[in-house]
Amino acid sequence: MAEKEDQEQKRTDVNELGEFGLINHLTSRFSIQKASTVKGIGDDAAVIDHGNNQTVVSTDMLVEGIHFDMMYTPLKHLGYKSIVVNLSDIYAMNAIPEQVTVSIALSNRYSVEALDELYEGIRTACSFYNVDLVGGDTTSSPKGLVISVTAVGSAPKEQIVYRDGAKAGDLICITGNLGAAYLGLQLLEREKQIYLSNPDVKPNLEDQNYLIGRQLKPEARKDMIELFAKNELIPTSMIDVSDGLASEVFHICSQSGVGAYVEESGVPLHPDTEKMAINFNIDPITCALSGGEDYELLFTVSPADLEKVKFMPDIYIAGEIVDKKDGIRLHTKGGNIHPITAQGWNHFNTSE
Amino acid sequence: MAEKEDQEQKRTDVNELGEFGLINHLTSRFSIQKASTVKGIGDDAAVIDHGNNQTVVSTDMLVEGIHFDMMYTPLKHLGYKSIVVNLSDIYAMNAIPEQVTVSIALSNRYSVEALDELYEGIRTACSFYNVDLVGGDTTSSPKGLVISVTAVGSAPKEQIVYRDGAKAGDLICITGNLGAAYLGLQLLEREKQIYLSNPDVKPNLEDQNYLIGRQLKPEARKDMIELFAKNELIPTSMIDVSDGLASEVFHICSQSGVGAYVEESGVPLHPDTEKMAINFNIDPITCALSGGEDYELLFTVSPADLEKVKFMPDIYIAGEIVDKKDGIRLHTKGGNIHPITAQGWNHFNTSE
Repeated sequence: MAEKEDQEQKRTDVNELGEFGLINHLTSRFSIQKASTVKGIGDDAAVIDHGNNQTVVSTDMLVEGIHFDMMYTPLKHLGYKSIVVNLSDIYAMNAIPEQVTVSIALSNRYSVEALDELYEGIRTACSFYNVDLVGGDTTSSPKGLVISVTAVGSAPKEQIVYRDGAKAGDLICITGNLGAAYLGLQLLEREKQIYLSNPDVKPNLEDQNYLIGRQLKPEARKDMIELFAKNELIPTSMIDVSDGLASEVFHICSQSGVGAYVEESGVPLHPDTEKMAINFNIDPITCALSGGEDYELLFTVSPADLEKVKFMPDIYIAGEIVDKKDGIRLHTKGGNIHPITAQGWNHFNTSE
Repeated sequence: MAEKEDQEQKRTDVNELGEFGLINHLTSRFSIQKASTVKGIGDDAAVIDHGNNQTVVSTDMLVEGIHFDMMYTPLKHLGYKSIVVNLSDIYAMNAIPEQVTVSIALSNRYSVEALDELYEGIRTACSFYNVDLVGGDTTSSPKGLVISVTAVGSAPKEQIVYRDGAKAGDLICITGNLGAAYLGLQLLEREKQIYLSNPDVKPNLEDQNYLIGRQLKPEARKDMIELFAKNELIPTSMIDVSDGLASEVFHICSQSGVGAYVEESGVPLHPDTEKMAINFNIDPITCALSGGEDYELLFTVSPADLEKVKFMPDIYIAGEIVDKKDGIRLHTKGGNIHPITAQGWNHFNTSE
């Protein structure tokens, strides 16, 4: 109990460091010891060499009240999404996910039937993405639901794509429209507040299936990884868009030691995103840059592969990798140039 | 929001199924799809075939208020233990752990300094056990701290030991004394209650370093796995003792389709365990059978290997595997015979 007092002598709020700062702070003193560790912290997934293929491992934690709100999240969708967000990280390594482990902590507010719903969603995702549930842990929590998923995949060594391979002159590509999942969340939050202040008002979410679907039931781009293999395309770098385009471009640039020039007109936006952003008084490009949870892939390819990506469906060329000294910049439709800065989600603002 | 009401139509409390029942219930509908999945749910770790060696994966979740109490758990020890409990599962497959991922969710009650303490313990464990921290997720929680660790290891295919290989006539072995961690927890809980009712009373934990150490800073039996390799001993089955001897013997028997005859006099107990059990008015053997968190290894060997285990340090022969029809029984020092039944920890009794 003395230990507790010692800890409280100096107190730095985790918000001061931010998400990425905190991760760096906590992990910078760890060193790699095993020959089989090809890649540790700092990419979408770790890479382990166990023989013919390399093993790729990724993990994510979803916390009730932080990542999801039971007021508007069907448990089946939550189970599905908890798998998808992990598989997305494995695909972002250009690898094929094969196994998942799922650990859950839950309060006794959750019944077995509720868990059945959750696992039905997990099962549906495992079946659709062709992965095996191979383990996990099930325990109780004093409050709410926590889901921790680890995904394991594999790929031949020469096929694995990291964040650090982008070179000046490479094309920046995106597999689909961005910002919709963020607006889906804003919509659900707005209707929740209306419902809480007057339970007689029916939620007005008609015609918003697209945006809400992108938030509640995202898909990982398995199809794109398969398309890459079929077309013998290996990106020079890749990351999945979970924290918003700005953050992901920043990660690629910072790890590759390059700059980037992103064309606003090249960033794909769904018509519903454009309409709803205006409705919320937000510039649509801001939703793409700073939203999140789109789970599209952001990747770079050598200019020699331009012909390949030009004829592949669902690939949008959104800019070009440039020298580091030229910075990371957005060229807006209006002809202005803005610097792009990293910003992960800042979850650390809850109080206990 | 309609979904929520539907879920509440039938409500089965998770306590009705118990821990193992719940896991079976939730996972029975999942099927194995990948050729690389050698072993899915149901052992200490999953086994994946990725080439020369097989990959072994295990995961565990530790929840504040369920698995640990910040009143008496130094964060450094908690970080250390969170790694150890996972490595113990990898060793229980006769494999060598090589990588871990660590995900944490924490409320803003935790400062960066507190997290530093936690990660210092994690780093110490990684260093001691020679494993790499290769990933994780760091997020916030509305309340308390949740730690989810996944460990990845490897071993040649022919060396991996499952729970299902025990045969009648095999010897039942244990690597060290049991029940101490459970009594350590009882002691800490007792002193906590005294402290809460009168903060002026100093905790009386002098001379109890052994029991408290077994609870707060357990070690995984890396040394035993190395000793097995050196002596070319491959157990016929193995499990780590995390839920108490009764539960682990039950798992071995049920998965191997055998019975067991456990000699009370063969179950190792530390003198401090014997003394403190009497102090708490519990039969010492009950602490070993139904306690938990000892993280010793329980394994079976062919009678042909008797000479090997007889001369290895820290191996206690505690009984024999028998035919299934003979059941799972404890032969007490007093000459009585009791059936042994499974019992995992029942964590599901918290209310929100």
